[in-house]
Amino acid sequence: MRKAAILDAAAQLIAERGYHAVRIADIAKIVGSSTGAVHYYFPGKSDVLRLALNHAITRAFARQSAELKNIRSARERLLKLIDMQLPRIGQVRDEWSVWVQFWAEAAVRPELRAEHNEFYARWRETVERIIERGQRDGEFRTDIDPTLVAMQLTAMTDGAAIQVLTGSPGLNVTAMREVLIAFVQSALIA
Amino acid sequence: MRKAAILDAAAQLIAERGYHAVRIADIAKIVGSSTGAVHYYFPGKSDVLRLALNHAITRAFARQSAELKNIRSARERLLKLIDMQLPRIGQVRDEWSVWVQFWAEAAVRPELRAEHNEFYARWRETVERIIERGQRDGEFRTDIDPTLVAMQLTAMTDGAAIQVLTGSPGLNVTAMREVLIAFVQSALIA
Repeated sequence: MRKAAILDAAAQLIAERGYHAVRIADIAKIVGSSTGAVHYYFPGKSDVLRLALNHAITRAFARQSAELKNIRSARERLLKLIDMQLPRIGQVRDEWSVWVQFWAEAAVRPELRAEHNEFYARWRETVERIIERGQRDGEFRTDIDPTLVAMQLTAMTDGAAIQVLTGSPGLNVTAMREVLIAFVQSALIA
Repeated sequence: MRKAAILDAAAQLIAERGYHAVRIADIAKIVGSSTGAVHYYFPGKSDVLRLALNHAITRAFARQSAELKNIRSARERLLKLIDMQLPRIGQVRDEWSVWVQFWAEAAVRPELRAEHNEFYARWRETVERIIERGQRDGEFRTDIDPTLVAMQLTAMTDGAAIQVLTGSPGLNVTAMREVLIAFVQSALIA
């Protein structure tokens, strides 16, 4: 319970201020605990980022799985996943913000990559399995490579989310949704 | 001359270590100058990042324009642009690394966004104009929206570059090239 609260606070602070602006004392203040107690969970500084990302991703996966498992149609399932990943203000935008902080750090600190790559592969595989199911069920085109289209869609999602988070005038949440759905339509359905 | 050397050094250090690990003294050491002289170009800490990105982008645009202006075919022009933007080890990867550092900072510091968005719009417009030209010349499908496809391609490029920079096992430079070219093929040509 305490651990979850500490990780929530860490993720929220990283999302709002950026990883390098977060101090252990700030996290302790939010959860009303001593810095020593917070240090217990984060032996090194980069553990704050690593565990906060892990926490944010686990939370997002749980939320998505709960929603997706009741949707039979692969097409509806993919559209729902896209919708749930849109960086709307609130929890989802905070989770994206933690990802962006993590990318910047993983690009220059190779020791952070293994865990990141594992999370990332899990997301890409989720998309790939939905596409394969849609192909089996006759909802998606069978003349396309599910691995390739999953890579294209996940890369497009990340790139579009960055534009939303950096306030790009051409790309708000609504436009991002249209851009991704148009891709699904032309790559998998049309 | 001195200014260019200072900006080169700043961009290189940001690319290698990450923005928050770069000290004015490190830049001064590389260019063999006093910290005071370097401070003259960077009144505030975030100016290091802002000007380094500006420098890296200006350099990349100049390189790309010089190559692209001699290519008549829009299709060849787009493929050349994609090729020149692949994050191969060296100058281009360093430029991407500066972008990733900038995104992480712009996501949490709104004051950095205006300049970023200007650069970004310029890139998207370059892609859009190539697509429009290809449509006029009969090289690209005319039943697609150039603005939409330019958004999809630039977002996909950013997302794929992040995976390359964070060492994603499934996506090296060669795979990134294939992913993007397959998109161009299916969205604009097939």
